[in-house]
Amino acid sequence: MTRIFIFIAAILFLTINHSAAQDKDSVIIRNIYNLALEKGKAYEWLDGLCKTIGSRLSGSAAAGKAVVYTKLLLEAEKYGTVSLQEVTVPRWRRNDVEKLGVTMGNYKTSLHITSLGGSIGTPTEGIKGNVIEVTSFAHLDSLGKKVSGKFVFYNVPFDQKHVNTFKAYSQVAKYRYSGAQNAAKYGALATITRSMTNIIDDNPHTGAMGYADGVKRIPACAVSTNGAEFLHAALINDANLTLELKMNCDTLSDTLSYNVIAEIKGTEYPEEIIVVGGHLDSWDMGQGAHDDGAGCMQSMEVLHIFKELNIKPKRTVRIVLFMNEENGLRGGKKYAQEAKAKGENHIAAIESDAGGSTPHGFSSECIDSLKRVNFVKWKNIMLPYGLYSWENNYGGADIGPLKDTGTLLIGLFTDSQRYFDYHHAASDTFDKINRRELELGAAAMAGMVYLLSEYGVSGK
Amino acid sequence: MTRIFIFIAAILFLTINHSAAQDKDSVIIRNIYNLALEKGKAYEWLDGLCKTIGSRLSGSAAAGKAVVYTKLLLEAEKYGTVSLQEVTVPRWRRNDVEKLGVTMGNYKTSLHITSLGGSIGTPTEGIKGNVIEVTSFAHLDSLGKKVSGKFVFYNVPFDQKHVNTFKAYSQVAKYRYSGAQNAAKYGALATITRSMTNIIDDNPHTGAMGYADGVKRIPACAVSTNGAEFLHAALINDANLTLELKMNCDTLSDTLSYNVIAEIKGTEYPEEIIVVGGHLDSWDMGQGAHDDGAGCMQSMEVLHIFKELNIKPKRTVRIVLFMNEENGLRGGKKYAQEAKAKGENHIAAIESDAGGSTPHGFSSECIDSLKRVNFVKWKNIMLPYGLYSWENNYGGADIGPLKDTGTLLIGLFTDSQRYFDYHHAASDTFDKINRRELELGAAAMAGMVYLLSEYGVSGK
Repeated sequence: MTRIFIFIAAILFLTINHSAAQDKDSVIIRNIYNLALEKGKAYEWLDGLCKTIGSRLSGSAAAGKAVVYTKLLLEAEKYGTVSLQEVTVPRWRRNDVEKLGVTMGNYKTSLHITSLGGSIGTPTEGIKGNVIEVTSFAHLDSLGKKVSGKFVFYNVPFDQKHVNTFKAYSQVAKYRYSGAQNAAKYGALATITRSMTNIIDDNPHTGAMGYADGVKRIPACAVSTNGAEFLHAALINDANLTLELKMNCDTLSDTLSYNVIAEIKGTEYPEEIIVVGGHLDSWDMGQGAHDDGAGCMQSMEVLHIFKELNIKPKRTVRIVLFMNEENGLRGGKKYAQEAKAKGENHIAAIESDAGGSTPHGFSSECIDSLKRVNFVKWKNIMLPYGLYSWENNYGGADIGPLKDTGTLLIGLFTDSQRYFDYHHAASDTFDKINRRELELGAAAMAGMVYLLSEYGVSGK
Repeated sequence: MTRIFIFIAAILFLTINHSAAQDKDSVIIRNIYNLALEKGKAYEWLDGLCKTIGSRLSGSAAAGKAVVYTKLLLEAEKYGTVSLQEVTVPRWRRNDVEKLGVTMGNYKTSLHITSLGGSIGTPTEGIKGNVIEVTSFAHLDSLGKKVSGKFVFYNVPFDQKHVNTFKAYSQVAKYRYSGAQNAAKYGALATITRSMTNIIDDNPHTGAMGYADGVKRIPACAVSTNGAEFLHAALINDANLTLELKMNCDTLSDTLSYNVIAEIKGTEYPEEIIVVGGHLDSWDMGQGAHDDGAGCMQSMEVLHIFKELNIKPKRTVRIVLFMNEENGLRGGKKYAQEAKAKGENHIAAIESDAGGSTPHGFSSECIDSLKRVNFVKWKNIMLPYGLYSWENNYGGADIGPLKDTGTLLIGLFTDSQRYFDYHHAASDTFDKINRRELELGAAAMAGMVYLLSEYGVSGK
């Protein structure tokens, strides 16, 4: 009888205790959202980053200013300690010549292009030749040496059928990154890639491309979707039209830059570290508002919210603004390298690098499924805030190098419909950001960081 | 033994049959989304409505053009029969004078205002007087006769803490609708209401107001949120500042307009009717892009998708573009009145009137809970498309008059973060619409109409 009583009492205690903890968490998460929506700082901080500093390609003066700007803002919060972590970054420059001329008989025009990040320039006098349109690497391989001495035009549109536009992007990004090296194997002069976007407009979209060892380096650019549609139609009319490409982009020697880090030491388990971050660098067009000024300001907002609500995390929380995600990932690699060298225990890392639109949930990846136990449970507590999507597939680029240590990697999953309209283009500017959508993302991250700091990844 | 065999066979048959039906439905819904995202018409149709016709207040020439435009587009689809249903609508006109001057000592300025829909104008020479700021109707009541001979300024901001902005709107819309009648009871001269929006800018937002029988009619306007913030600060500095209001809006006699209706007769249960619609009228500022051109074009898209996929619904599907939702609801009332007079059986009605942003689910209401049986089950089949929210609270304004006949009322629930930034303001223009977000809403509605037409509301 006594044992039964104790058993029942224990169950009651556990139930009440559990429910009290849940209630407390629900209240704290509600407070986090209230603070973000009413008194968040991320929007005005992003305004400053976008309009005062603007685009901030790794190694540029603007990237240096962004380091100073965010460090000062974090220090002004007077919550935790702020530091810089040295990162050696590449230094690619667009410079001032970007021109793609089209000649069809007597008719001449030019198309809106952008050099791809990392590309070499053309000779000053430019490159001239015919062009062959290809629709896949298999198509390129089937053409083989027929592209020798010609431009290769990768014209593969986004598959609009994907509800998640990142899926469309992931299918075609290879033409931007590997298009030049694959075409060069067959002797192509240069490559032109259709911009990676869901919309048809005049904005060319840049992004990283790479060369392969032992393969000739050829210039690579992207053409706007309107330009791609024009060139496609023009080639139907005149397969012998000629293109003339001039670009003077180049690459200088590596230079010193920084990851910006703010740390709130955990009160109970300081050796268990939770990273929350975005990347501070951007491409050199537009203002890097969605990609990824938004993610950086949301991460800084986590610190601000914790301070305003006087949340003292049980585990150590580190805000990390990574340098050089776009063309090298040097910041992410350096951070993981140092963490491993110091033997630090990173239980989880959250990244926001999918734009500042309304968050819909979190994606995740981890080599140890036990470390997803708590994360999966928290879906219910976050569902009232529209965070319904909880897929197990991806964390983030900058936090990726932490994966092999068993860190739970978490990515903020956002409404992706508009993201690629602006991605890596001159149109990625502050006016495309909605204050409330941005703050909802910050609150989602703060809520997740709070739960991780309170319970860890596999505790009760 | 035989009976057990039959029993098992029956279970197997039902299971396989059920799963085959689910698979078929999943494929059809996937095809609906593919068609909408790749080849939808709603975006270009809305472009025409917004840019060629623009705003279309009930009774205006533009509203008449919108009737012709949508009728022609529906007829051109050659799927189902198209008709017009007569609706007598009110005819309020803004006209050309709208001015709110502020005088503080020697300093004079003016604020951005809009007449509220339905308001009377001022005398030509305007109205002058002091102003009292109120923050609630209880506050107004506590002031009582102190507001006599003065302007009443309702300055109640949106509660930013609501994740769903419609909740913030629902809390304050009463100051716009009933502000004048309540203030007039205490002898106020006129009312100025803070615009109903989440953002701080210079756009005043209009909307319906109403007078009460036996209470003096006084002019009512809305001031932009920037203007409201200014007036609030100015009153702290000088409680005796004076306002001067001039408006020359007026109301003409009722006139004839139309609901636009396209019907696809059901192949098996033609007497069971499913309505899908939005409202064709808008306020007379901006282009009525989100409110509610989007909902009308999405409803028309349902017809287009059914035609392209050769879906022949088992139950009758009616596309209804309602006239006069904004200032009278005459179209919705007339439609329900005729339906009831004819003894028609409306099993369900879906309305899209929450803007063209990414859909998050469906809300619903019904006086007969049994009629939500199928609807609730379909959440699983729609979840892959981000339709996670399935609340039981509201259908829509135009379909509301069908409620008392037991019709299941369904509202498309959308991302609400940007909606009130543009709602009833000059900024509700086509450039605020994203093609994919609009089409996702159309596909969600088409999927729901398909399921309703296939299975009804309470069948298997």
